[in-house]
Amino acid sequence: MARTKLSRGVAVVGAGMSKFGAFPGLATRDLFVDAFKEMLASVDKGLDARDIEALYIGNFSSDLFEGQAHVAPIMADWVGLTPRPATRVEDACASSGVALREGIIAIASGLYDMVLVGGIEKMTDLPTARVTDTLATAADVTYETPAGFTFPGLYASMATAYMAAYGAPLEAFLRVGLKNHEHGALNPKAQFGQRISDIMEARKASAAKKGKPIPTWVDEMAFLMDERANPTIAWPMRLYDCSPISDGAAAVLLVSEELATRFSNAPLYVVGSGQASDGATHDRPILTGIPAAQRAAQMAYAMAGITPADIALAEVHDCFTIAEIMATEDLGFFAPGEGWKAAIEGRTARTGDHPINVSGGLKSKGHPVGASGAGQVIEIWKQLRGEAGVRQLPGSLRFGLTHNVGGTGQTCAVHIFERR
Amino acid sequence: MARTKLSRGVAVVGAGMSKFGAFPGLATRDLFVDAFKEMLASVDKGLDARDIEALYIGNFSSDLFEGQAHVAPIMADWVGLTPRPATRVEDACASSGVALREGIIAIASGLYDMVLVGGIEKMTDLPTARVTDTLATAADVTYETPAGFTFPGLYASMATAYMAAYGAPLEAFLRVGLKNHEHGALNPKAQFGQRISDIMEARKASAAKKGKPIPTWVDEMAFLMDERANPTIAWPMRLYDCSPISDGAAAVLLVSEELATRFSNAPLYVVGSGQASDGATHDRPILTGIPAAQRAAQMAYAMAGITPADIALAEVHDCFTIAEIMATEDLGFFAPGEGWKAAIEGRTARTGDHPINVSGGLKSKGHPVGASGAGQVIEIWKQLRGEAGVRQLPGSLRFGLTHNVGGTGQTCAVHIFERR
Repeated sequence: MARTKLSRGVAVVGAGMSKFGAFPGLATRDLFVDAFKEMLASVDKGLDARDIEALYIGNFSSDLFEGQAHVAPIMADWVGLTPRPATRVEDACASSGVALREGIIAIASGLYDMVLVGGIEKMTDLPTARVTDTLATAADVTYETPAGFTFPGLYASMATAYMAAYGAPLEAFLRVGLKNHEHGALNPKAQFGQRISDIMEARKASAAKKGKPIPTWVDEMAFLMDERANPTIAWPMRLYDCSPISDGAAAVLLVSEELATRFSNAPLYVVGSGQASDGATHDRPILTGIPAAQRAAQMAYAMAGITPADIALAEVHDCFTIAEIMATEDLGFFAPGEGWKAAIEGRTARTGDHPINVSGGLKSKGHPVGASGAGQVIEIWKQLRGEAGVRQLPGSLRFGLTHNVGGTGQTCAVHIFERR
Repeated sequence: MARTKLSRGVAVVGAGMSKFGAFPGLATRDLFVDAFKEMLASVDKGLDARDIEALYIGNFSSDLFEGQAHVAPIMADWVGLTPRPATRVEDACASSGVALREGIIAIASGLYDMVLVGGIEKMTDLPTARVTDTLATAADVTYETPAGFTFPGLYASMATAYMAAYGAPLEAFLRVGLKNHEHGALNPKAQFGQRISDIMEARKASAAKKGKPIPTWVDEMAFLMDERANPTIAWPMRLYDCSPISDGAAAVLLVSEELATRFSNAPLYVVGSGQASDGATHDRPILTGIPAAQRAAQMAYAMAGITPADIALAEVHDCFTIAEIMATEDLGFFAPGEGWKAAIEGRTARTGDHPINVSGGLKSKGHPVGASGAGQVIEIWKQLRGEAGVRQLPGSLRFGLTHNVGGTGQTCAVHIFERR
């Protein structure tokens, strides 16, 4: 009985984000206010914020990170939007990708014409070991974590399965991290503004300053292959294969399609939305891709009536570098087992034929988990509108895609946006 | 710009719940399977569960209660519904009332024809003090809890404000608890199957058996007024003014209006839905009612095109007895300051003119917080269909209402159902 079309079109007319990073003095609500203000400023023809009719807030676990549940009405209150309905949506690291889908559905229902979608997470107040434990609650604690897994281990098991199935070398993963640091260095909102070569040179300079032997890395790949520079977290995933622990917020304003040009000179039309669920890794037939992502992508492409070849750029969920490689296959950009080759060949770089994570991705831009899905939309907003500054992709860009995964793929949300 | 009508009608064609109570050997997923099976059995004309297209799961904080976030896909998996989209909705104790609204909106959007709404919570694995701390994360931890409040205290402050404003005596609160225990004694799913008189007589019998002096309580009110029998938790709220710590799950099946009679001989049509948010108590102009509930009720009545006088029965959020009294005013059954009199006069009993919480309410049926909102729908389903057995209300019942509050009123969801 499922339909592939919404009964009413939806468009993005505003998008903003806080800086991503570690902000010890700020709370989630402060970061959300930053994102909200930038979103307001991005609405070309201006906005009376009181016209916003409802809020959907993606958040993984402010419960565990800040001891604060029930965050949606607090966010509404801090941007002056009570008594409007305020709903928190949680699907682990896909929380705000799913919140975006709920906002779209809510407008399509006819109940609202204007909805604010937010994503929030404040992770850095906890010690790193507790962050790892907290993130592990997004896995199945009855099956996955008792087997000894936290998330680096779960994705490492996918990486080893992928290597075994397709013969991918370690270099493929490292190339993804290298690329995303190159991209993130062009993004002033990114948590890491440094290229790997910057980091390498800084390490050399630091050694020289301290009178220690200067490391002899001849290039970034030598640096990344060196266990001392890039220690193993869960083999084959090393430090620069893993996204960081981050604080951040993002805000996206949706309106019904017929109102889009009332607010924006260059709205993005939501032409595709897909979401799927799955069991945990212990009960999955394959580990070399994410079935929920494949299905969510199929749903989104079917709704949009386009193919992977039509996508000008994609922001994908690179929580680990293996995840980006699998994503480029799950989304149909490359055939199964071919994604690692594309990574090595530079095809997913901003200069390649399938630009992936030109924002820097989760790896370099940062991964405040509940904010990451909404954060992806900000980059698509800027790129499709030609407002991405020094990191602007060339040419006329029509379709952009976001891919947001929760857990090890128990949830995936995929969205496609069109600049007409 | 807000509309009061959905673009497409929605009906309930199935509803089921687990028993509410304390179940040390079971996990959330087990309770949800119980609820799902009872829901399936309640569909008059049968159902192929594979026709369900999406799940919305209300849950307050499995994160803190069970160390398990990302519960929606797990629930989908355990009832065999992956890879369908599975979304967790959280608004504290209003989580599944809001999940119900999301399910309704999703069908109205045209994207789905059949949606499963669940509510789940497993609270009793933690020690009581940690449950209290966990529930306190639904308050504003920056403003409310540092002032020394946990939830009994927050609602106690509303009770004292109410007493001061309207001259309500302690008896009014105790009458609500007494009534809800009378109601719950008729509900086999209730956590507490005992009337207060049963409890009183059991205490007398226990004393006699142990050779201790037999208490001289002459009636239930004497028992409830006795500090030894009914100790103060946060004055004026005593033990029997407070809902219990509970485990439980509920499941509600929604379809588009045009499919209702394909599945059910007696569907309930969703004619009203309202949701509102608010700031926390420190920033609220009144404490003698809940503004978000008043607004959500207005939205629901406006959508339904009816008045409070049309409601045959209501399941309201009696997390504390003061909350039920305020609810009967916020919902318009009684004027502000008159609810306490109605409670004393028995007008809200099953034999009164405004039957409230004929299931036993949160007080007696139990309050597995994320499941409570969906659990309310089960009673409306049974009563409007004439299937409530020994607790069936007499006469032809047309409209039933549910009222589900999160926190101290930072969220409220109100729904109205019609049996045509």
